[in-house]
Amino acid sequence: MPPLNLAVDVHRMWADIMSLAEITDPQRPYTRRSFSPLFLEGRRWLARQFADAGLAVRIDAAGNLIGRALGNLPALGVIAVGSHSDTVPSGGRFDGIAGVVTGLEIIRALGDANIRLDHTVEIIDFLAEEPSEYGLSCVGSRGMSGALDPPMLDRTNSAGEKLRDALHRVGGDSHRLDAARRRDIKAFIELHIEQGIVLEAESLDVGIVTAIVGIRRIEIVFVGAADHAGTTPMALRKDALIAGANTVASVRCIAEQIAAVGQDYFVATVGVLTVAPGAANVVPSKCRIVIDARTTDPALTERFTRMIEIESARHAADAQVSRMPLTILSDGPPAGCDPTLRTVLHENTRELGLRAIDIASGAGHDAAFMSRICPSGMVLVPCRQGKSHSPEEWADANAIAAGAAVVLQSVMTLDQSLPRDAAAHGGQ
Amino acid sequence: MPPLNLAVDVHRMWADIMSLAEITDPQRPYTRRSFSPLFLEGRRWLARQFADAGLAVRIDAAGNLIGRALGNLPALGVIAVGSHSDTVPSGGRFDGIAGVVTGLEIIRALGDANIRLDHTVEIIDFLAEEPSEYGLSCVGSRGMSGALDPPMLDRTNSAGEKLRDALHRVGGDSHRLDAARRRDIKAFIELHIEQGIVLEAESLDVGIVTAIVGIRRIEIVFVGAADHAGTTPMALRKDALIAGANTVASVRCIAEQIAAVGQDYFVATVGVLTVAPGAANVVPSKCRIVIDARTTDPALTERFTRMIEIESARHAADAQVSRMPLTILSDGPPAGCDPTLRTVLHENTRELGLRAIDIASGAGHDAAFMSRICPSGMVLVPCRQGKSHSPEEWADANAIAAGAAVVLQSVMTLDQSLPRDAAAHGGQ
Repeated sequence: MPPLNLAVDVHRMWADIMSLAEITDPQRPYTRRSFSPLFLEGRRWLARQFADAGLAVRIDAAGNLIGRALGNLPALGVIAVGSHSDTVPSGGRFDGIAGVVTGLEIIRALGDANIRLDHTVEIIDFLAEEPSEYGLSCVGSRGMSGALDPPMLDRTNSAGEKLRDALHRVGGDSHRLDAARRRDIKAFIELHIEQGIVLEAESLDVGIVTAIVGIRRIEIVFVGAADHAGTTPMALRKDALIAGANTVASVRCIAEQIAAVGQDYFVATVGVLTVAPGAANVVPSKCRIVIDARTTDPALTERFTRMIEIESARHAADAQVSRMPLTILSDGPPAGCDPTLRTVLHENTRELGLRAIDIASGAGHDAAFMSRICPSGMVLVPCRQGKSHSPEEWADANAIAAGAAVVLQSVMTLDQSLPRDAAAHGGQ
Repeated sequence: MPPLNLAVDVHRMWADIMSLAEITDPQRPYTRRSFSPLFLEGRRWLARQFADAGLAVRIDAAGNLIGRALGNLPALGVIAVGSHSDTVPSGGRFDGIAGVVTGLEIIRALGDANIRLDHTVEIIDFLAEEPSEYGLSCVGSRGMSGALDPPMLDRTNSAGEKLRDALHRVGGDSHRLDAARRRDIKAFIELHIEQGIVLEAESLDVGIVTAIVGIRRIEIVFVGAADHAGTTPMALRKDALIAGANTVASVRCIAEQIAAVGQDYFVATVGVLTVAPGAANVVPSKCRIVIDARTTDPALTERFTRMIEIESARHAADAQVSRMPLTILSDGPPAGCDPTLRTVLHENTRELGLRAIDIASGAGHDAAFMSRICPSGMVLVPCRQGKSHSPEEWADANAIAAGAAVVLQSVMTLDQSLPRDAAAHGGQ
C-alpha cells in the first residue's frame, strides 16, 4: 500500500500549542516545571485530548503519559511518536510541546481518514525531559529504556523530597519500573524545534537528525567558612564563591579552546550557581556549580572533565577552601539515529515536496534514550533565530505542520515496511 | 552618688540567650530572619521578659520593640541600651542578642537592688539590623534616626512585598515614621560580640569602640540572553554569569590591593550572587551580585566604587552582555563614638577591675545610626576565633556578663553625670 498523502490540520495543531501555553506560571511565562501542579494541569488537559481522539490513556510506572491506538495486528508491536510537555523556568511554548502535539495530530488525521494501521500507535509525553529540581533530565525516557537506577531515584529536591516519591505523586511507581521498560516498540520518532539557526538560515523545512550529543552534568561544591564580611581581613578569608567564580571563568575558557579546535561539536555552560548562606554581609561558606558539557565525541568530554578537575582544585587552593570530589550528576553518551528511519524520513520529506538536511543535534532529547531500546529518528523544524529555553522561542505554525506531515507519512510507511517476524503474524 | 557595684546574674543572662537560640529554623540553626514568623515568635518571647521585668512594652512606628522603665525625673530624657534579635541565615546565637539581653539584665539588676534611676531607661530591640530580604539593613535604627526614606520603603522582597507593607506586618507604621524619630535620648550604649579576633588574642575583657566602619552596598546586574546551552556555539553566547563571575574575581583583587596599602581599614565581599533562569541547560540571561564594601575612610569607598565601575563594564563587554548602572543599595558613612561616653565606659571598666582597649569596629551596628541623634557608645566582648554569622559563633557567659557589668555601671554613672538642663528640671 503506497502511503496516502494525508493532510495535517495546521489550525488544530496551533490551537493545541496555544492552549498548553496558557497553562503557565503567570509570573514567568512560559513555565510548566515537571512535577509541579501546573505540569499536572497540563497533563490533565493533554489526557482529555488523547481520550477525545479515541486513545486509551495511561501513565506508566516511569511517569510517562501514554495514549494508545490499538493496531489491526497488535502482535506486530508499537510505533511510537512523542516528546515532552514540561518546560525550563521561563521557557518557551514549542520545545517538547510541538512533538507531543504532532503525535496527537497524527492520531486525529488517521481518524479523520478512517485509517487503522496494522501496528499499534502510541503517543508519549515523556516525564521531565528538562533538568528537574531533582537534578536529573529525561526521567521518563530513562525509565522506559531501563536507565533510571536507584541512586537517581534517591536524589532530592531543595525541599528534601526524593525523586522516587515525586514519581508516585505524578502517577508513576518506582517499585514497578521494570513494567515501564519497553521491548515492544519497533520504531520511535520525535519531532522537535531545532533550537539552532541552521534550518532558518538555509530556508530548509526539516532537519533529519544523524546523532544527538552526549550530555555530561558535573556538580562541583566548594566549602569555605562563613565569616563576618566586616571583621575578617581579606587575607584570612575562606571564600567559597571566589573559587566558584574562577571555575566558571575556567569552564568558559576551556570550552572555547576545545570548540576552537573544531574536531567535533563541543559546548559547556554553567547555568546553575548557588551561594550559601547568601547574605550580603557574610563571606560565602559554600558555592555549588553545575556544568553542562555536550559533544558528539565522548573523548572530548573526558578531556574537558580532566582539565576542570585540575583547574577547580587550583582555584580552591588559591581561595583557601576545600573542593569536594567532582560529582557526575548525569552522563548521557552521544546517540546515533537509526539509518533505516533516517532514510524513511528523507524519502517522505521528498514525497511531500519539502527540503531536508542531515543535522547533528546539539540538544539532548528523549530520542537519545529511546535509541537504546528501538530504532529511533528525529525530525527538527526551524525556529526563529534559534532562540529556545526562553519566552521568545517561536516556530511558525506552517513549519511545525510541515514537520508533522513528514512524521505522519513516515509512520504510515513504517507500518508497512518494518520487518514482520513469523511469531508476530502467528500471534494474530 | 558613687555608682554601686551591682552584680549582673550570669546564669540568668545565659538562660535568656539559650532560650532565644531555641527559636530558630530547625533545618538551619541559628536562623531567625527579620519579618519572619520565627522572628515574631522571638519578639513575643522578649516582650514577655520585658513585661515580667516591669517594663512598659511597645513597638514604635519603625518596628522597634521597646521596653521602658520610667525614671524619677522623666523630663531628663532617656538612657537607651540595646541591639537586635534578628539573625543572618545560618547565623549565631550571640550577634545582637547579647546586647538585647544585656539591656534586660540591667533592668532586672536595678530592680533586684530596688534602684530607680532619674532618667528613664529604655531597652531597644532594633528591627532588621542584618540585611533583610528587602535589601536593607538597620531598618529600625534608620527609622529611629530619621534615615529611613520613601525609596527604601518601596524596596521589595523576592515575593514582591514592599518593605513598607512588611513594616506594618511586624507592628510598625510607615505613615507615622516621624513618631519613631527620637529627640529625647540622651545616651545610647550597645554591647556586641567583637566578631573579630583582637580581644581573644590579647586576653582583654572589653573593646571600647572608637569608630564604626561605613558600609556601602552596591548592586550590579548583568543582562544577556537565555539561549539553549546545547545549540548555542560558544562564540555566539551572551552569558550574564561570565560577566558576574569575572566581576566577583575583580572585587576580590581590588579589595586585596586597597587593603594591602594599609592606610585605613578596608574589606569588600560578594555574599550574594543569583543567576536566572538558573537551569543547567540554559545560558544565564541575568546575573545579580551585591558587593559589601567597608572602611573607616570614605575616600577608599569612592576609589573602590570607581574601579569596580570600570572593571564590571569591561567584563560585560567581553561577555557580550549589558551591565545595568550600578545601584547603591545602602551607604552608611563611618560613625565616630561619643568621646564622653568612651571615657565613662573606660572608667567603669577600670573600676570593675577589667581590661579594655580602644578598637575600631569592622562590623556595622545600630549604634552607627543612633550616633546621628544622640551620644552613642559601644562595648565589644570577645568571641571565639572571631567567628560570627555562622552556627559556630560563640561567646563565654562570663565574657558577656563582664561586658554587661560595664554597661550597667556606665548607665548608673551617666544617670548622674549627663548634663541636666534647666527646662528638664523645671519639668519636674
